[in-house]
Amino acid sequence: MIRTMAVIGTGLIGTSIGLAASQQGVIVYLADRDENHAAAAAALGAGRLDSSREPVDLAVIAVPPSDVGPVLADQQRRRSALSYTDVASVKHGPQRHVLDHAPEPSRYVGGHPLAGGECSGPLAGRADLFRGQTWVLTPSPQTDDAALERGLQLVALCGATPVLMDSLAHDERIALTSHAPHVMASLLAARLIGRPSEVPTLVGKGFRDTTRIALGRSPLWADILAANAEPVAAVLADLQEDLSRLLAALNELAAGGPAEMAGMKTLTDVLDRGIAGLAALPDTRPDAPTAR
Amino acid sequence: MIRTMAVIGTGLIGTSIGLAASQQGVIVYLADRDENHAAAAAALGAGRLDSSREPVDLAVIAVPPSDVGPVLADQQRRRSALSYTDVASVKHGPQRHVLDHAPEPSRYVGGHPLAGGECSGPLAGRADLFRGQTWVLTPSPQTDDAALERGLQLVALCGATPVLMDSLAHDERIALTSHAPHVMASLLAARLIGRPSEVPTLVGKGFRDTTRIALGRSPLWADILAANAEPVAAVLADLQEDLSRLLAALNELAAGGPAEMAGMKTLTDVLDRGIAGLAALPDTRPDAPTAR
Repeated sequence: MIRTMAVIGTGLIGTSIGLAASQQGVIVYLADRDENHAAAAAALGAGRLDSSREPVDLAVIAVPPSDVGPVLADQQRRRSALSYTDVASVKHGPQRHVLDHAPEPSRYVGGHPLAGGECSGPLAGRADLFRGQTWVLTPSPQTDDAALERGLQLVALCGATPVLMDSLAHDERIALTSHAPHVMASLLAARLIGRPSEVPTLVGKGFRDTTRIALGRSPLWADILAANAEPVAAVLADLQEDLSRLLAALNELAAGGPAEMAGMKTLTDVLDRGIAGLAALPDTRPDAPTAR
Repeated sequence: MIRTMAVIGTGLIGTSIGLAASQQGVIVYLADRDENHAAAAAALGAGRLDSSREPVDLAVIAVPPSDVGPVLADQQRRRSALSYTDVASVKHGPQRHVLDHAPEPSRYVGGHPLAGGECSGPLAGRADLFRGQTWVLTPSPQTDDAALERGLQLVALCGATPVLMDSLAHDERIALTSHAPHVMASLLAARLIGRPSEVPTLVGKGFRDTTRIALGRSPLWADILAANAEPVAAVLADLQEDLSRLLAALNELAAGGPAEMAGMKTLTDVLDRGIAGLAALPDTRPDAPTAR
């Protein structure tokens, strides 16, 4: 049972965890490098601003990926908690840092709640942010039972569904499902820069949906992409190959050359492969009618 | 006043127009190459299946871009209507075809309602599909007042907001706001093919939003992209340059080379440019808290 908890970093995720845990009767101690953020989270009801005299049951490190290792090692040196977890969307690098540098790596289990989105900061926090969402835990071979158990209790407190995964496998998969999409959304949204003022008139739901996540804070996302650079680059390199093929086909079609049939085949193939990819997802029905 | 209307092509858009017009008391005659589609649209209340003996007030050609010219010329040869419009998302090529081949180009005004999405077919039709949406009309120098007036009346019947635009300007802008996003969604979704079955577990709202439009029917979308090949290629070529720059930065960061600072700067720059692009849109507030 988690009775006391520390949340280090009261951005969107940390504040939301504090709100969810507080509502379940957990005593939550909040801390943030930016005192205004911690105060805002406390004002929302996410926890209190003083510190616990004794080690709390669980410390949740809710800081950007590159800070997780150092902040966690610092917390462990102070013996601030019995178990430790984090919420960064990159798991392998931070975990390696903990195994190499933290005093008690056995007390740590990596975590990544799949929630958030284009909003950030404590004021965007919501107690139900994680409800029904997936929350990955990445126990290392050194993670002890108590840390894993407390990680699972945190997931349950927040109403999320736990999924256990190797940290490297997590990073490869999340590169595909979250980090590469963020990059593509940014690249697409950047095309609006310097375009005639009439362009926004033609922006519909499709453009907004494909670019919405690009609103995420750039310092945090640069940190995430850098921390997961190799897997993200692998996904984008694959995508770039397809893009080059498609561009060649479009140029051929624009020129009205003899390869028009081949060009149409390439277009259809790219589109069909997209549909096939989405067919792998649950609840995706190509060409399904909407509810009326 | 539009009292009678023909809808040629009863997919999502044609059926939705029929539903909206019928609800406003217009007599709508439906036709589709696929009789089952026309019958389904009629069963939903989008109109009737027989033909009008006299020319209707407005014929709406709701077929893929490459069919607009030929179908419109055929309808004009039969004198089926007083005025004609279409709904294809590419305007310049079809309009050129009409000007060159149709018997009465003055009776035609190009149109493009910005609605639709990942669903298709008559069963996805909704009378309120266009409500509050933008509907572009692209009168040519030859378009007569009656055709433009009836085009505007159609937009009003459907509860949409009319925007007049040159056909070439429309195509360049829609390449950016609709066609290129569709391609990027397809390329991203295709990355799911052949990936471990655990990948879908990590697919959250972000991935779904950025790829949803890729579910559109591939024959229709191949036709759209081919009909607007040059403007779409121009947008994608720009995007590819940024992608290459970003990939180089990620590879540098993955290698841990001396250009790490420059790599982080490139990442942040790409992300900031995405945010700047979205800032051009109405109602987009970077980092704004959600409604609680």
